[in-house]
Amino acid sequence: MLRVPFTELASTLAAILVRIGFDPNRAEHCARLFAETTRDGVYSHGVERFPRFLEMICNGTVDIHATPECTQQFGALERWDGHRGPGNLNAWASMARAIELSADHGIGCVALANTNHWMRGGSYGWQAADAGVIGVCWTNTLANLPPWGASVPALGNNPLIIAVPRPAGHVVLDVAMSQFSYGALATYRRTGHPLPVDGGFDAEGHLTRDPAAIEASQRPLPIGYWKGSGLAMMLDMVAALLSGGLATHQIPTEPVKETGLSQIFLALNLAKLQPTEASAQAADAIVDSLLASGASVRYPGQQVLKTRAENLALGLPVREELWDNLLSL
Amino acid sequence: MLRVPFTELASTLAAILVRIGFDPNRAEHCARLFAETTRDGVYSHGVERFPRFLEMICNGTVDIHATPECTQQFGALERWDGHRGPGNLNAWASMARAIELSADHGIGCVALANTNHWMRGGSYGWQAADAGVIGVCWTNTLANLPPWGASVPALGNNPLIIAVPRPAGHVVLDVAMSQFSYGALATYRRTGHPLPVDGGFDAEGHLTRDPAAIEASQRPLPIGYWKGSGLAMMLDMVAALLSGGLATHQIPTEPVKETGLSQIFLALNLAKLQPTEASAQAADAIVDSLLASGASVRYPGQQVLKTRAENLALGLPVREELWDNLLSL
Repeated sequence: MLRVPFTELASTLAAILVRIGFDPNRAEHCARLFAETTRDGVYSHGVERFPRFLEMICNGTVDIHATPECTQQFGALERWDGHRGPGNLNAWASMARAIELSADHGIGCVALANTNHWMRGGSYGWQAADAGVIGVCWTNTLANLPPWGASVPALGNNPLIIAVPRPAGHVVLDVAMSQFSYGALATYRRTGHPLPVDGGFDAEGHLTRDPAAIEASQRPLPIGYWKGSGLAMMLDMVAALLSGGLATHQIPTEPVKETGLSQIFLALNLAKLQPTEASAQAADAIVDSLLASGASVRYPGQQVLKTRAENLALGLPVREELWDNLLSL
Repeated sequence: MLRVPFTELASTLAAILVRIGFDPNRAEHCARLFAETTRDGVYSHGVERFPRFLEMICNGTVDIHATPECTQQFGALERWDGHRGPGNLNAWASMARAIELSADHGIGCVALANTNHWMRGGSYGWQAADAGVIGVCWTNTLANLPPWGASVPALGNNPLIIAVPRPAGHVVLDVAMSQFSYGALATYRRTGHPLPVDGGFDAEGHLTRDPAAIEASQRPLPIGYWKGSGLAMMLDMVAALLSGGLATHQIPTEPVKETGLSQIFLALNLAKLQPTEASAQAADAIVDSLLASGASVRYPGQQVLKTRAENLALGLPVREELWDNLLSL
């Protein structure tokens, strides 16, 4: 594994995007979001995902020139059309707009239709928290998760992000509705380790910790069994209805053609209700009481800050083959 | 098990509330919410819970005369103080206010501090859906769930409700962040059945399906292990910070003294964006595609409608001893 400085990684990705026709400012922002994802340790959705992003530009799934457009507005609630532009830029613009709405209305909601994979959902949680607001967002996905009681995929693993700003370190949860992503299953399989808990069903319908058996059956487990199955459905339903866009059952099932996603971005402007010092104190007390409950307990986002600091100091880990490949583009 | 007609159950509970000093209109509403909960099959939080509610009035935890008061307002975001009034009436008023705000702003959010147990959270989801809006609400609770990595409770099992209106049957999810409630564990133990999936840790720290072992260890499992642990924390944090009220770590840990809860009520007014017929069609298509994925698949809320119809036809199931006890009050 190479260690590449953050700015070198970001500028390398940006240069590739400019060469394929991106506007330079948009290339810089899009590349930075990929690099920040790797910087923060979410390796599956950072630079590792960049080649697939390029493939989806080449195959016409992502339109690099498209920008989101407001199609309807009622008070603090807006509908935007992503016009199948780059998913991370669309998502960033949507959370930025929700934050703006929250400055006027206390709360803001952008429902975004017709967009593409947003890569790391947590990016938009950190964005909200950095702006000093509570952020909540989620996306639907193609069908990759069997509902509880079924053996074929009919739900997305629809990630949900909840972010609370805190001067001592934002608290940011970023969870998909499957217990383990396919990326995580592959990683366990390659290292020869069983999953730490049941992660899905094998071909015979038994719960298993064998990652390869779940990859083969295509039956990963929703978090909390029937509960995560219900949550995944609701997230899809609210995103599709509010945005007027596609629901999971309408999204192309081939991963490199996954498009037309529906997403929700909510910003809650706590600073309109109380001074940020009061919020910081209350947030710190909650974090402290959690951490006091056990030596190995972590709050959501805690590990990100540690990984970020390490990767900024040592350089971002990038597979040598991937790096060579990127430099050759 | 007796079968008591809905109106008889509701009026019996209301008469008891009037005798202990409730305003008659509030008594009728409070009693109806208890009866509707039993009607809908959520037996643990309906009439079965009524004696404990009376106890909490007698011990001063619930102030029957208190009504919620708006303490701060910024656009579509409001803070209310529940003044430790009856939890179900406070929650109902808060969701009603969120719905009202959504009529003006597209979205409305009420953050309620200083309230009491809301009984069945789903009540306020059905309330929103009946009013034609998407409703999202959650509450914190006393600490009853160990965070992932700890063996002592430091999180609440904070239920989350998401409700989508649909003419053919609302879709309403009502899930607590523990895989099984203590009520559910007790039911499995009494019937001598193991849990269908792991529900917590035994005294030695091993995952188990033995309900009694989990009751003894007080280590129920969050849904999705580390994921539900994170979700429970975020729900507490957002509720406490936005409402300016107590967080789980500040709530009295004795169940009959549990008070000062913080709750969030969100209403999203989809009808401001598109005709309800378009929403109904999109919702139906999502439900249909889910149900088509397997013969035993259910959508959230589906079973409630079936149970409701059965209980209205046959009378509501009430334990004979409980009924005798109520009639003697």
